[in-house]
Amino acid sequence: MAHISLPADASPGIGGLLGAYPKTAKHMTALAQELLRGDSPLSPAERELIAACVSRANECEFCTQSHASVACSLFSSDDDSDASIVDEVVMKQNVSGLSEKMQGLVALALAVQKGGQFVDQIHIDRVRAASATDQEIHDTVLIAAAFCMFNRYVDGLDTSVPSDNSMYDSMGKYLAHHGYVSGEA
Amino acid sequence: MAHISLPADASPGIGGLLGAYPKTAKHMTALAQELLRGDSPLSPAERELIAACVSRANECEFCTQSHASVACSLFSSDDDSDASIVDEVVMKQNVSGLSEKMQGLVALALAVQKGGQFVDQIHIDRVRAASATDQEIHDTVLIAAAFCMFNRYVDGLDTSVPSDNSMYDSMGKYLAHHGYVSGEA
Repeated sequence: MAHISLPADASPGIGGLLGAYPKTAKHMTALAQELLRGDSPLSPAERELIAACVSRANECEFCTQSHASVACSLFSSDDDSDASIVDEVVMKQNVSGLSEKMQGLVALALAVQKGGQFVDQIHIDRVRAASATDQEIHDTVLIAAAFCMFNRYVDGLDTSVPSDNSMYDSMGKYLAHHGYVSGEA
Repeated sequence: MAHISLPADASPGIGGLLGAYPKTAKHMTALAQELLRGDSPLSPAERELIAACVSRANECEFCTQSHASVACSLFSSDDDSDASIVDEVVMKQNVSGLSEKMQGLVALALAVQKGGQFVDQIHIDRVRAASATDQEIHDTVLIAAAFCMFNRYVDGLDTSVPSDNSMYDSMGKYLAHHGYVSGEA
């Protein structure tokens, strides 16, 4: 049971909180939409992959499974990609299938997850050498920072996880197509 | 120098980032305004104090000094309060001058800062025993979580700090009166 009262039919994870606290939810959802679906040189699939990696490092089961599912759905719809990369990167921490730039951006995101001071010049030099732009560095840092918020919101209030793991698949497909504007982060 | 290019006249700390990246800034600023100035049983001064404590734990100098200054300004304008409580709580980690409820909420916020899983039932039982409501628990957890984002955004991109510490005082007074809608978090 969550640390605060939520309706008996509340969605698991962040969904129940967003429904019960709409004034803050509105801005959090809009931020998620801009970060994960707005204009960026990083594809939505790449951004969801970064979000899932950070959530995994924060040990947030709900966000890890949700955003890994969204990333899988997005990579699956891209003929040039193989969705199995998500499981390799997020669950097995094997980044060898990623481009050098994405390997560097994932490392940068994981430094941000530990704390802002853990970002060293070496992280920046590595992604610059792989041609990362200011916007890509900015978006990676802010996605990582934002998931340090979302993950703590979900786990700090001890929200429930889905009783059936197949719910992540349907949530992933839904969010891949519809984004975050109408409710879930 | 920050890890990404910012205008030569960019404000220190988060201000330069918000100016340079307005699409995400809009939602982050609106979230800060709702969390720190919106309806809550916690006063703006109490919420700024929680924000400063979390920023201190994250070792984010800019956000610690800024929000401690805002809290000082808000406590100073309250006849029943003594602004020296801010230095005691934030810098000296001496919470003995706070109410039992605020001591518990600060402890809860510092657990969230470590990670969502660090919130134990004992944190919740303590604040419930001091009559904390669901809204107070929710707002404390989300303020702490949000400052884990703001702090990482500021430090992960290695933004500058003010060259003159008196700038925090004027910023604190400004934000105490005007809030966050027009720009800075």
